[in-house]
Amino acid sequence: MNEFELIRRYFAEAEAAEQTVLGIGDDAAIVRPSPGCDLHVSVDTLVSGRHFFADVDPAALGHKTLAVNLSDMAAMGARPRWALLALTLPHVDADWLKAFADGLFALARTHGVALIGGDTTRGPLTLSITVMGETARGAALCRHTARPGDDVWVSGQLGLAALALRHLQPDSPALPTDVLTQCRQQLERPQPRVALGQALLPLAHACIDVSDGLLADLGHILQRSQLGAELWLDALPTHPWLAERRAQMVELLVAGGDDYELCFTAPVAARDAITALSNICPVTRIGRTTNEAGPADLLDAAGNKIQVGRSGFDHFQNQA
Amino acid sequence: MNEFELIRRYFAEAEAAEQTVLGIGDDAAIVRPSPGCDLHVSVDTLVSGRHFFADVDPAALGHKTLAVNLSDMAAMGARPRWALLALTLPHVDADWLKAFADGLFALARTHGVALIGGDTTRGPLTLSITVMGETARGAALCRHTARPGDDVWVSGQLGLAALALRHLQPDSPALPTDVLTQCRQQLERPQPRVALGQALLPLAHACIDVSDGLLADLGHILQRSQLGAELWLDALPTHPWLAERRAQMVELLVAGGDDYELCFTAPVAARDAITALSNICPVTRIGRTTNEAGPADLLDAAGNKIQVGRSGFDHFQNQA
Repeated sequence: MNEFELIRRYFAEAEAAEQTVLGIGDDAAIVRPSPGCDLHVSVDTLVSGRHFFADVDPAALGHKTLAVNLSDMAAMGARPRWALLALTLPHVDADWLKAFADGLFALARTHGVALIGGDTTRGPLTLSITVMGETARGAALCRHTARPGDDVWVSGQLGLAALALRHLQPDSPALPTDVLTQCRQQLERPQPRVALGQALLPLAHACIDVSDGLLADLGHILQRSQLGAELWLDALPTHPWLAERRAQMVELLVAGGDDYELCFTAPVAARDAITALSNICPVTRIGRTTNEAGPADLLDAAGNKIQVGRSGFDHFQNQA
Repeated sequence: MNEFELIRRYFAEAEAAEQTVLGIGDDAAIVRPSPGCDLHVSVDTLVSGRHFFADVDPAALGHKTLAVNLSDMAAMGARPRWALLALTLPHVDADWLKAFADGLFALARTHGVALIGGDTTRGPLTLSITVMGETARGAALCRHTARPGDDVWVSGQLGLAALALRHLQPDSPALPTDVLTQCRQQLERPQPRVALGQALLPLAHACIDVSDGLLADLGHILQRSQLGAELWLDALPTHPWLAERRAQMVELLVAGGDDYELCFTAPVAARDAITALSNICPVTRIGRTTNEAGPADLLDAAGNKIQVGRSGFDHFQNQA
């Protein structure tokens, strides 16, 4: 099987997608953006041994590779439309590829995303997806538009993926099976908050997806908006097993990474409307922005600042 | 220096680009596509040890990483507009990054392309660029639209990059210094035929860029257009040194790869108009399409078919 047959067999879903003029099989794909819309585009790469284990279930990997990209669209409030896959593979393994494609396409179909192109080459296992989405013109949720006195919110639960990852370390403490199952599900098959992002368009001031840990990612909003924030440890939503150990597990909650939840700020006036979005997914108010620019302060129940050892996942400072 | 500072320092050219709403620094970049235009998008990945040597001049590598992507836009007749860079690096080397960025941005400026986003992660050296461009709606040059009796044309010269690459093999014959210099220039700093592609929009029927070798890439046009073709060995444009050794060097000319020239088909009526495009770059008529679907026949001066051993570069069949 050569490269071209390989691509055709597993990645050329024949479904003609709306506003897709030309899909896989030419020098470029051609799409017809919606009139009056802004086009959002983002790329995220997963590297074997760094972002996933080489022996991970390929279907889960296909899911996650697209999920982390859809999470970027969610953070902009964009409707994801099209994706391109740059696949670098050490060798051709038909079963692996089929499972990977199945996992990727299942999530793509859920969100109405068309895989329109890509590139396949030989080399160390590296997966890079470019995703494109749309919002109405000027409607996007950005990082630089938070305002002082905003509520700070987060979707879902924090720290589960990081707990699963920690459990895979040699010296990790035992974890109840059901807890581990839920945490691994979060690590391997994160659900991008696409519907929530779009629902937040008229409500939120600023938004980011939490991929490197809450403190680091909220930090990007604060830095670009020239604000500070306080976060309340006891308010951070997490799994009950982690919640009982909140004080010992604080790093996992705020700096664990791989959560793929949305962290957003919104005016106090939007509080009820945002609470009502819990029919889409859980949303929790966890703090507020302040005028004094700087990293967020994490406060305990008595209002004392908590020092956190590790301020988020940095690809170059913390080598895997 | 952490990942974010790294990206900021070398890749965040502050110039506000036309129709770019939001550049590097958020979850996605936002662009405002031109009304009435189709959007072209393509991704190409270069892997260390496969597409380039790890010790290659980083400025040349920055140039080539973008050039191979711009070549895809050229093949569609699209005006390249925006690019995203997914950079996987084994470590942070400030000098290397600066040179790489300089090489990339120099070519980007030449073609009016804005780098609007990307991703940086740690891992084996892998460079992936997503490029986006525009044509008027429905105007693109595609692979499936060649017609029987079309002339077959190619831009520039074939086989130079392949000759440079062969020269780097241990058992390669000696090469005059000036020939080697020109061939290395073609290998390391290919000039994407962006202006030619756009000039061909009203003239050509089908177009592809020659990255895997003329026979293989023309083969894609033929397969998708359900045609055959004959090519005339003596007509193939190449360096005089190679031209003198045409019969022995035929694989380099038609299956060498890395040419990044345009191969296109056009009606006989367009012959004069296309010849006039030599003010942009050399264009040479090298054959014609035929009704009988199949791979192109390469003919010698007597009209006899020439067997070619290697039908183009395949990432999975010919491991580096």
